[in-house]
Amino acid sequence: MSDAEFALLAALAPNLAADGAGIDRGWGDDAAVVRVAGAPVVVAVDAIVEGVHWRGDVSAPGDVGWKALAVNVSDCAAMAADPVAAVVALQRAPGWDRAYVTALYEGLHAAAQHWGVALVGGDIVSAPTGALTVTVLGDLDGRAAVRRDGASPGEALVCVGALGGPAAALAALEVGEHPSSALLASHRRPPAHPAAGRALARAGATALIDCSDGLGADLGHLCRGSGVGAQVDAAALPLAEGLTEAAAMLDRDPWELAAGGGEDFALLAAVPAEAAEAAAAAASAAEGGIPAAVIGQTVADDARAVRLVLPDGAVRDISASGFEHGRPR
Amino acid sequence: MSDAEFALLAALAPNLAADGAGIDRGWGDDAAVVRVAGAPVVVAVDAIVEGVHWRGDVSAPGDVGWKALAVNVSDCAAMAADPVAAVVALQRAPGWDRAYVTALYEGLHAAAQHWGVALVGGDIVSAPTGALTVTVLGDLDGRAAVRRDGASPGEALVCVGALGGPAAALAALEVGEHPSSALLASHRRPPAHPAAGRALARAGATALIDCSDGLGADLGHLCRGSGVGAQVDAAALPLAEGLTEAAAMLDRDPWELAAGGGEDFALLAAVPAEAAEAAAAAASAAEGGIPAAVIGQTVADDARAVRLVLPDGAVRDISASGFEHGRPR
Repeated sequence: MSDAEFALLAALAPNLAADGAGIDRGWGDDAAVVRVAGAPVVVAVDAIVEGVHWRGDVSAPGDVGWKALAVNVSDCAAMAADPVAAVVALQRAPGWDRAYVTALYEGLHAAAQHWGVALVGGDIVSAPTGALTVTVLGDLDGRAAVRRDGASPGEALVCVGALGGPAAALAALEVGEHPSSALLASHRRPPAHPAAGRALARAGATALIDCSDGLGADLGHLCRGSGVGAQVDAAALPLAEGLTEAAAMLDRDPWELAAGGGEDFALLAAVPAEAAEAAAAAASAAEGGIPAAVIGQTVADDARAVRLVLPDGAVRDISASGFEHGRPR
Repeated sequence: MSDAEFALLAALAPNLAADGAGIDRGWGDDAAVVRVAGAPVVVAVDAIVEGVHWRGDVSAPGDVGWKALAVNVSDCAAMAADPVAAVVALQRAPGWDRAYVTALYEGLHAAAQHWGVALVGGDIVSAPTGALTVTVLGDLDGRAAVRRDGASPGEALVCVGALGGPAAALAALEVGEHPSSALLASHRRPPAHPAAGRALARAGATALIDCSDGLGADLGHLCRGSGVGAQVDAAALPLAEGLTEAAAMLDRDPWELAAGGGEDFALLAAVPAEAAEAAAAAASAAEGGIPAAVIGQTVADDARAVRLVLPDGAVRDISASGFEHGRPR
């Protein structure tokens, strides 16, 4: 969701259920947590729409299926939940023949196999615009969900997963350049890091969010939810493979792509300072050694600002920067 | 889903999870039943699309929100589950201003209040075509889910809820007539009958389905799933209020509208013959006295046919008849 869409949802809150009996976590986080038969169930839902979240000339149908599941697995990861089952509502565009739909489901299936999610069915309807809405249910295995609003000042910020890959790929495509295969893959078949999410929870994370909207925007959500500010060291950010080279080619600032892009699905956690290095190492190891780093700290700040400190000492407020799907910056 | 869409989903089955460890019921029923933290969770998902499932000149945005939730509550009802929580993915069309979206959520909220469902959030994205995808989670309260494939020959068929209202309303609108307010309401704000579903389960229902695609099509699903045929007495069908008059005005056969229409969200159950009258009475009472009747019986039939016996003794095979959304017959 863009900031504008998030603000709209916030305005609709009177029509939504608040946290309370049977609801461990209502709207306003990466996923909801509700009680069914007494057990806490994490529920994540995301819709992706052709022309908005992917381009038919960039993503094959199998990529689209993969991505539709991955974004929800990432939402579960950002609650420290283990994704276990998914249902799919497919809006079939007129041009989507049987081969297209089959390839799309093969991509869904590949992602489901990769993350151990049972694809248990769903709905297919005809529609003028192609879209997929996936709902993933997550299991907390007896742990509490890690929300985005639990951070305190003076904690370390840990980032797990690479930043800027999809933003660089889309920026290159926009100017007619060919992005590297690694950058393109990060857009077409994004990762998600549920094992890292659980590792961060075990390491004592007080707040957790994924970078689906971009580091600046999502860290802004964490800060406003928790009532803190953040200071981030640009030199510490785990950059996507090939990002520096792509930024040079595009004459763009790599920090801008890494902090202001989106669709990264890196996880961002606040962790007690003394546990931070171990938390980053454990989360990286849980995902087979993906990039992970302590990137800064939370600070007391009534303005809830997210400040990025560049290598030359300049400071930028990036809490307002975000990623508008279809309009990469 | 239309029969064609159902056939497509069946062809995609190799990419879907089969019933097994952690999956009480996978694809192919009104809803799936999965285990989360050991507890059975019913999951229903349906997408409704502007211009396909509703017309902007017929349904107000509040009606659309109501309907998006109701169709999923009905899917839970058809598994004998109690709907408890819902998430919403909204695809916001360019013309949907803030007032439209707010009214839409007010309709969702009204339906959620009506059925005791907690609306715990979701996703909002911009899209060329307006659509809502709602996922509802249901609780079985320790009962087994009632599937659509458990009927045996010689059982009674019980129908709970009125048939033909939406089909008559849409047929009238198509020819420029004004349907009665009761018929129009059945299209705009459809009912759902979760209390009746639970009552039918308690009364020993062996198979259960909702009539979202029309009595003929859905009874066909029940018959093919269960390996039985069905014989239905047209004179016994619980008709929507005003349907007979509307059919006369339209020069249409009321049985055709009642059996071949769709979006009725009546429940259809196979029940041991000796329990049928009591089951119908209990299900009706559980919903405050809605129409309910024993409408026929299951029979041994290798062809799995659904035969409708008209008052004059003529017999029609209605198992192939169904409702194509946007193309009422």
